[in-house]
Amino acid sequence: MTGGAGRVYLDWNATAPLRPEAREAMLSAMEVAGNPSSVHAEGRAARALVENARADVAALVGCKPGEVVFTSGATEAARVLSTVPAQYDVLVDPTAHDAVWAHVRMSNWSERPDGPGHTLAMGLANSETGVITDPPDKLDGTYPFGAARADSLFLDVTQAVGRIPWSFAWSGAALACLSAHKLGGPKGVGALIVRDGMDITAIQSGGGQELGRRSGTENVTGIAGFGAAARAALRDLDAGVWTGVEKLRNILESALVSGAKETIFVGKESRRLPNTSCFVTPGWKGETQVMQMDLAGFAVSSGSACSSGKVKTPRVLQAMGLDARAAEGALRVSLGPTTTEDDIMRFADAWLKQERKYRQRAA
Amino acid sequence: MTGGAGRVYLDWNATAPLRPEAREAMLSAMEVAGNPSSVHAEGRAARALVENARADVAALVGCKPGEVVFTSGATEAARVLSTVPAQYDVLVDPTAHDAVWAHVRMSNWSERPDGPGHTLAMGLANSETGVITDPPDKLDGTYPFGAARADSLFLDVTQAVGRIPWSFAWSGAALACLSAHKLGGPKGVGALIVRDGMDITAIQSGGGQELGRRSGTENVTGIAGFGAAARAALRDLDAGVWTGVEKLRNILESALVSGAKETIFVGKESRRLPNTSCFVTPGWKGETQVMQMDLAGFAVSSGSACSSGKVKTPRVLQAMGLDARAAEGALRVSLGPTTTEDDIMRFADAWLKQERKYRQRAA
Repeated sequence: MTGGAGRVYLDWNATAPLRPEAREAMLSAMEVAGNPSSVHAEGRAARALVENARADVAALVGCKPGEVVFTSGATEAARVLSTVPAQYDVLVDPTAHDAVWAHVRMSNWSERPDGPGHTLAMGLANSETGVITDPPDKLDGTYPFGAARADSLFLDVTQAVGRIPWSFAWSGAALACLSAHKLGGPKGVGALIVRDGMDITAIQSGGGQELGRRSGTENVTGIAGFGAAARAALRDLDAGVWTGVEKLRNILESALVSGAKETIFVGKESRRLPNTSCFVTPGWKGETQVMQMDLAGFAVSSGSACSSGKVKTPRVLQAMGLDARAAEGALRVSLGPTTTEDDIMRFADAWLKQERKYRQRAA
Repeated sequence: MTGGAGRVYLDWNATAPLRPEAREAMLSAMEVAGNPSSVHAEGRAARALVENARADVAALVGCKPGEVVFTSGATEAARVLSTVPAQYDVLVDPTAHDAVWAHVRMSNWSERPDGPGHTLAMGLANSETGVITDPPDKLDGTYPFGAARADSLFLDVTQAVGRIPWSFAWSGAALACLSAHKLGGPKGVGALIVRDGMDITAIQSGGGQELGRRSGTENVTGIAGFGAAARAALRDLDAGVWTGVEKLRNILESALVSGAKETIFVGKESRRLPNTSCFVTPGWKGETQVMQMDLAGFAVSSGSACSSGKVKTPRVLQAMGLDARAAEGALRVSLGPTTTEDDIMRFADAWLKQERKYRQRAA
């Protein structure tokens, strides 16, 4: 139970509740007055918070501390794709998040010329379905999504990092992005990971912070929270916490299908994040389900939590082969380390009750 | 006394200590689990925090809430200048902050053609000297810095807002930027102010947050702190707190000049921020002074707190007419609402002691 009085929060892919460790680190950081770029004692204390957090994030991500560039989140980090020189195409996985999709430079895959270089941008795990897409082992190998070859790889690991074992060093990626708030850190802070020795155009110009790669006074409190959350996430991963989360997710899916046999689980046959279940009831709109479940005390989602109020084209689910009507009937339930079996069973009961009502109305 | 045990913090232009009101608001915000773009109760609670803060920031800035776009700081907000269409020049005040300067599109003022449109980008108050430069009253009037005309005005009000009375609505500016941490909010959050009805290119693309003008999950905790700091800053401004700060600044300058008659106060004859004193001892390097004062227990600065370790060309002071040797001998002392007369007098004593030692070495 993580959503306040009587409520059950099952929307961890939208954002995870703040970890107590992150809260404590942020409280301490608030006491440090200095600007990390100031050379006096107060500035050096702020600098130490940032550099300690950098080491913690690097340990979770499996990279060198010097490869971590702190940003305001994965969306800002993905902007590095817009600095790819114009003679290079950016090929984007059609199931990638909008923040990556925004930088596509060639949307028609069949028309890509052989001449220019390609940067393949993809998500390691999809936020809506949890489906994991392994990046190519070698840059001259066979690529997912029909890409013939790529000269460099950008990986959005926002939903994956801290939930499945993963290492930037081993991934072959040149660039990666992540957000603190998906792993129990605060919202509004994240990182761009830049392979050692790779030269990037600054994603933000000005005072020259982050070794000139991202100017702007650092979000010291947020970065301290990010570091503490990364440390806690690595500890949870090592302790097998997500195996327990996966069991609960599987219990949930069994309970749902036993009460509503026609339920389609999206990506169930694929390798998925341990915490995500995306299921479709064709005709019963996801948005309606979200509102009905909210009234019943449960926070769930019908897709990515972006741009409130905008009815999104279900691009991702359609790219996965669902027709428009089915895609609109999708609900996403995403769990976390503090989710309990009681949370899950109460959700299943409440959802099945609403599902029966829907069938009666539709009949 | 605001810099920890026994220390005196006099570097408020680099960053202000977090206001207690901001700390409290951030603590409360940390309890809200939701993503502001989620439609369920947890998401709506996060949304309410963001919108309440937007109203508080608008009240301080003197604009409509809908004109406030939350960003990761003034540096990010200044990036709007890079979205100015290519046929327009961006003319930048030579004393502007590096974050604004980064977007200059015509550095040689004398060569600017009459044909293209001009966006004049300037700082309302200089961070290093506190000197206030009034923007033109009318867009077809006479411009500062030799600009013949401008079609639109971008104002960096980071150092000014909350310290002197100012209103976006009355300013004639099309765009403005500010950072929370200069007025007692957290580092890593700020705002771009966009005149109602003005269409800007998104400064960050992705999920479509901030009405499509700045994508990325909002820094809810930071934004809540920003709102509370803005509210407190407006209250202080109304209560005349900065008049008291100005008195202390003037006491400091009198004390310094009575002990070291050759001290040059930069901008003393101009209208200045009430809290800033920039003074020059030609030959005694500012960096050395900062280190010596740090050892003596005082946090002060030799310029903008940017890009740690980089020895900056003192562009701003040179643009104000100081020669290179004098500009390198500048020290900036900046006060805040919690600075006391005791802080000031202790600083003056310690600095004069070091100044005498310098003169002995130099003799």
